[in-house]
Amino acid sequence: MEFKRLPKHIGIIPDGNRRWAQARGLDKKDGYRFGIEPGFQLYQMCLELGIEEITFYGFTKDNTKRPSEQTKEFRKACVESVMGLAEKDGELLIVGDKESKLFPEELKPFTKRTKFGKGGIKINFLVNYGWEWDICKGCKEGDSSKMQKHIQSSDISRIDLIIRWGGRRRLSGFLPVQSVYADFYVIDDLWPDFKKEQFYDALKWYEHQDITLGG
Amino acid sequence: MEFKRLPKHIGIIPDGNRRWAQARGLDKKDGYRFGIEPGFQLYQMCLELGIEEITFYGFTKDNTKRPSEQTKEFRKACVESVMGLAEKDGELLIVGDKESKLFPEELKPFTKRTKFGKGGIKINFLVNYGWEWDICKGCKEGDSSKMQKHIQSSDISRIDLIIRWGGRRRLSGFLPVQSVYADFYVIDDLWPDFKKEQFYDALKWYEHQDITLGG
Repeated sequence: MEFKRLPKHIGIIPDGNRRWAQARGLDKKDGYRFGIEPGFQLYQMCLELGIEEITFYGFTKDNTKRPSEQTKEFRKACVESVMGLAEKDGELLIVGDKESKLFPEELKPFTKRTKFGKGGIKINFLVNYGWEWDICKGCKEGDSSKMQKHIQSSDISRIDLIIRWGGRRRLSGFLPVQSVYADFYVIDDLWPDFKKEQFYDALKWYEHQDITLGG
Repeated sequence: MEFKRLPKHIGIIPDGNRRWAQARGLDKKDGYRFGIEPGFQLYQMCLELGIEEITFYGFTKDNTKRPSEQTKEFRKACVESVMGLAEKDGELLIVGDKESKLFPEELKPFTKRTKFGKGGIKINFLVNYGWEWDICKGCKEGDSSKMQKHIQSSDISRIDLIIRWGGRRRLSGFLPVQSVYADFYVIDDLWPDFKKEQFYDALKWYEHQDITLGG
């Protein structure tokens, strides 16, 4: 596939794991582990296309209000995803509230950007992330022009394209500051049903969007 | 029209005025005045449906970087829209940076919520609004749980449904805090081509969305 114009930074909202499990007669909690492999496939495609930065929505502080059998499974799936990525090439950063005991211990070292293999593509993973936690904690009165330096996710750049699987047309608290100008593409299929064509279609659509940054 | 479930608060991004003008051989700047009447129609529909709150995206600080013949026209269209609404029933609040000289003088009295006629529906109008100005200026370190009290737009509640005309699938800096959980519906037609059916279609679509607030 050739593209005239690619997004520099893509945000991924991999929604629909629980609905996918239920549709197969499985427990909701069993859906998450089927969402791991698609993430690796997507990473590989971004690498080949030369995408500079990619951000995955792991789980949020909102999500942790779900039944504990589910929170256990999605935390496990996040750890497995991150550990898998750590065996590939890239520069990984985990952003999320690590003060909470719901933040997986194994992932703490990666809350500073860490280079793996040949480095290159920036991979951000939101783990126990909260939009309020993000945009207010470090923010100081009157600092609006420097605001992006003070938010918790300040090492994550502005997002060009957000792709959401699972049909919902909303951000669900995904990086409000970096998303203000992002183009938003929704795929009705559920995340475990990831197909390469869905991603290419999103990139084809993005090619035809103008970029105004609100101007 | 009957609805089983209506959004309490609807955000409106009335985009496409300039493209509409160009398609008719007019100057870009001449599009804005054709965007005034649709706003009144939409207001009337919300009133009849019993919607509690509606927020219109007037213009932003980003927008003011456009050629001055355009900024003059969209400021004029905003003033006319607000003055028209002031003759109807509702509680009007204008949110935006009034320190700037690009903020229309006539609108300054309405930066405090003002009741017109029988009151009732809350109408918010963003005028010379900026997302950075909004979410950082009044924000204090460590205050994340109280954050929504400190932002500039703190009198505007969480938005349930955002409807954007003109085909672009992005927020363009529209109220990032209130939009974190909003469902986002895009109409390809340009704003001056507003039709009642488009709005009803959006409400029909919204009826079938689940509400999770990220949970």
